[in-house]
This record gives sequence, C-alpha cells and structure tokens, in this order.
Amino acid sequence: MKFSNEELIERVSQGDMRAVSRLITLSENGVPRAREVLSELYKQSGSAHVIGVTGSPGAGKSTLVDHLARQWKARGKKVAILAIDPTSPFSGGAVLGDRIRMTKTAEDGEIFIRSMATRGALGGLSRGSLDAVHILDAAGFDIIFIETVGVGQAEVDIVRTADTCLVVLVPGMGDSVQAIKAGILEIADIFVINKADRDGADLVHKDLRVLLSLSDYEENDWKPPILKAIATKGDGTEELTEKMAEHQLWLSGSEVGKERKRKIIEDRIVKLTTELLLQRVIGDNQDKVQQLVDECLDRKRDPFSVVEQLVQAAMKF
Amino acid sequence: MKFSNEELIERVSQGDMRAVSRLITLSENGVPRAREVLSELYKQSGSAHVIGVTGSPGAGKSTLVDHLARQWKARGKKVAILAIDPTSPFSGGAVLGDRIRMTKTAEDGEIFIRSMATRGALGGLSRGSLDAVHILDAAGFDIIFIETVGVGQAEVDIVRTADTCLVVLVPGMGDSVQAIKAGILEIADIFVINKADRDGADLVHKDLRVLLSLSDYEENDWKPPILKAIATKGDGTEELTEKMAEHQLWLSGSEVGKERKRKIIEDRIVKLTTELLLQRVIGDNQDKVQQLVDECLDRKRDPFSVVEQLVQAAMKF
Repeated sequence: MKFSNEELIERVSQGDMRAVSRLITLSENGVPRAREVLSELYKQSGSAHVIGVTGSPGAGKSTLVDHLARQWKARGKKVAILAIDPTSPFSGGAVLGDRIRMTKTAEDGEIFIRSMATRGALGGLSRGSLDAVHILDAAGFDIIFIETVGVGQAEVDIVRTADTCLVVLVPGMGDSVQAIKAGILEIADIFVINKADRDGADLVHKDLRVLLSLSDYEENDWKPPILKAIATKGDGTEELTEKMAEHQLWLSGSEVGKERKRKIIEDRIVKLTTELLLQRVIGDNQDKVQQLVDECLDRKRDPFSVVEQLVQAAMKF
Repeated sequence: MKFSNEELIERVSQGDMRAVSRLITLSENGVPRAREVLSELYKQSGSAHVIGVTGSPGAGKSTLVDHLARQWKARGKKVAILAIDPTSPFSGGAVLGDRIRMTKTAEDGEIFIRSMATRGALGGLSRGSLDAVHILDAAGFDIIFIETVGVGQAEVDIVRTADTCLVVLVPGMGDSVQAIKAGILEIADIFVINKADRDGADLVHKDLRVLLSLSDYEENDWKPPILKAIATKGDGTEELTEKMAEHQLWLSGSEVGKERKRKIIEDRIVKLTTELLLQRVIGDNQDKVQQLVDECLDRKRDPFSVVEQLVQAAMKF
C-alpha cells in the first residue's frame, strides 16, 4: 500500500505501526519525501526516553535489551528496539546474527523491533537510525532502545544520540584498559556487568570502581552506577530498569540534561548538513569528480587543490 | 624550531624525521598551512605499501605489528607504524594503552611510531591519519602500518585506506558470527589467527574456511589466506610478511589494485570536502547555528528546515 505524505503524517502520529515501518524504510532509502514528512512530525517528538546500549561483541547486549524491553512493557510503556548493524562497507550486505533473535522477541507482539544497517554512503552513516528514533518518538513510543553491535566511533556517535547510555561489560574479555581503549567509558551513564556469574565479575567491578574514582565528579553530577546482571536469566534487569528511570528523572531536572538535548540536535543538524552538501558537491557532480580522481591517480593533481576547486565552484562565499 | 613551508617540503622529501613529526602535528591540529605543504608533497607520494591492521580489542594487534615491523626492517625497508586510538568524544582525552608499548618499540630507533587520535570533530574523523600516511609516503617510507584499536565503522573506514588489510582474530573471543557482525570479514586481504597456541584456534580456522567458501571468488581474485601466529613469540610473522609482499605484488599487477587506489583517492576527496564544507557552513557560522538549535529545542523549528536554510544560504546552486 502506498501512503501519501499526509497519510503518513497522520498515521504515524496515531502510532500506526505499518505507517511507522514504511516511513522508516523510506528514510533509510533516502527517499526525498521522507524529509518532508519527518520535518512535519518533528513538533510531535521529544518526549521519548532514548536508551543507547553498547559494549563489546559477545557481551550479551541483545539478550539484555530483550529483557529490559519486557520490563518497560510490564510497566505499561510502549517500547521499541533499534538494533544497529555495521554494514559491510563493500557489499552493503545484511548481517546474520540479529535476524535470528529478532523473530523471537517479535513474537511478543507489542515490542517494535527493527534491525538497521549503518550505511557507508556519503555522510549518511547513522542518518537512518537517527531518523528512526525521530519517527518512533513522534509515533508515541515511550522507550526507544538503540542497541549497537560494536564499540567503535560510529557506535559511540549513535549512542551519543541517546538520553541514557548503558555500557555493557563482561568478565574475561580482557582487562579494563581495553574498555578505556575503546573509548566508551566516558559515555556511560550506567555500567552493566553482564554474565555476572562468571569468574572475574568482581574484578571488572573493582577495576571500574577504581577508574570511576579517578574521574572528577561535581556535587550535582550523575555518578554512573555499576550494576550486575545475568541477562540469560533476566537477573538484575529490574534494578537496571529502575536505574534508567532514575537517570531520566535526574536528566529532566538538570542543566546537563538540557545541554545534552541541545547537543543531540546540533549533531543532527551537522549530519544532515553533511549529507545534503556532499550530495550537491560530490554526488550530483560525479563525472567531474571521477575525472579529478583520475588526475590525482596520475599525480597530475592533488586531492587538496581538487577539493578547493570543487568547494569554490559550489559555495557563495 | 619553526620550519617554513619550503623547509618542511624539502626536509620531509629528504626523510628528515623531525620535519615529518612536525608536519603530522600541524596537520593533526588542522593548521591551514599544512594543507599547502601536503598539496605540494602529493606528487612524491604513491609508492609506499600501506598495511591496515584491525581486529577486536585484546587480539594482540600491537605486539603483532611490532614483530611485523621488525621483519620488514630486517628486509631493508623503511617502516612506520601509525597506531590509531579512538578519542573519547567528550573529553578528547588521551588513551593509555599504546603509550606504554610505544616506548618499547621506539627504542629500536629506526621504526617510526606515532599514536594518533581519531578526533570527533566536524567530519575530521580520520583526516589526521590519512594525512600522516600521505606525509610518511612522501618522506620515503616503504611500509606504513595503520593499526586500529576497535572494529567499528570508523576503524573499517581507516583500514579501507590501506593497500593490504590484515584482520586479526583470536580463539575464544566468541564465535565467528561475531566477526561477521563486526563487518570486518569482507575487508580482509589476510586473516591472522593470533594466540594460535590457545584452545579453539583450529575452530576459528575451520569457521573462517567455511565462511570463505561461501564467498564467490572469480578466477583472478585474491583469495584471503588464513595464517596462524603467536605474536608474543614472533611465531608466524615471517610467513605473514611473505604473504603481505605477495599481496602487494598481486595488487600491482591487477585491475583490482588500480581500482582500490582510485577508491582511496575518492574517499580522501570526499573526506576533505566534507571537512571544508562543514567548516564554512557550520563552523564559521556558530552564532546562527546555535540560535537555530535553540529554536529546534523549543520545537519552533525542525532540523530539516534548518539544514535546508543553512545550505541554501551557502550554495551557489
């Protein structure tokens, strides 16, 4: 079925799931009219609690998120899960893992689950997932999980768009220095030590406490708590849910919360601007760009002067 | 000591290491004159063999790269290592791990090692590292390793700029589905199973073989070999070095190799264009942008119409 823009706006506002899915697909595919619809839906967004979940591959994030989603649902909330897969930059191919799991949780019926790829195209790395959050928010979802696969910069960027960020660690995946290396420590609002019945859980806990004690927290700062969980059994997920609610409450009353919301909007503007500018300067200008690439390949030109030329030709100032 | 542009160009061309370091710092800090110098040095670049190394945190990449660097040095090559750390997106803070190790290899004297941060600023994610490769190439380095910490999209993007890409796996870090999830399988030119004396090495080997057998290789394609190594002892590093040399030879004679070089240049042009455009449209326009962000925060405007306005104001077409 084809929806007109007006129908999409109306139906998404009413929380019609088919319309939501359709609009996410349109925006994921970069269909221009999706922008117009999202632009209209914006004023209805802003009330969802967006929860980012990141951690090493194999940390059990999917299972944990499934349980947490059920906890929120039991509290009467409308819940969505976005599982972000890093697409292969070469084939753009689909990813196996989450597909299997998705069907399982999807049986639950009332939790919306969507697996999304982070496309490698011109600046559009995480646009799809940002758009999806925006759509789900406007559709009246109370809780939106963004679950990422890895712990790289792209994942960090995605998780930064969340109100609350969970960092999931597991015992025995290398020492905590690895966690620092991965650069995820400072984005955590809540630490979760998953598979907490394994050897080494206390060690991870201790290392984290030491690391946190090195940070300079001000009187009114949120100090990231460290919680233990065994996601496969659902252990610890209630406490975690409580802690997330607490964090949201804290955010809503603090200057930090407002600043974070500003930053999310600013990031979004920067990403959208990047995409639009690159489309105009590079995407719509492919013949010229390819010719310039060839000249660089032959060392007749260099990328710096080429870029100067492309930008000067396009900009008013 | 301050170098003029002319001195930098001359000294870097002669392989003067102090000038090389200085220029990398200038470009990392986004000093405008670095562009002019890099532009001039471009015609002297293009002969280095750039080797990307990626894999999970804890896979032993640093130790492996140290050994491989020594192997190349023993073959009479001039070798550099760029260790890419994901900077915390909040503090921009430095990372601990590699600093310790760096001093160790640096004692070797003739291997150039530089730890670099992937900065989160406006599109400049990996510009610093791309510039550094460019500079080292122009300075006459034969072998340039780019070693990344994680396996996220940003790391993949960086490794794509290499001629040869090593993907390092270890036994017992979760099954190979995790490796697919991380999206690194398809970028591998050579697989390395490090810590191959551990339990499960054969299992990883078997899983990889199965996965590779699912790929459609054409007659003349490079089929990624799977090698075992124990980096801490240096075991297997000679075979690996041989294999890298073989891959370079294959690339130099193939259409694929030329296409890859085109793609690297194109990516570089896209990244530089992004940076320049964002600087002009967002960076130099902060007062206006902050006002528009506030309007979005109050739901008086939406990011889409804001971006439209910013881009239209800046572009000729």
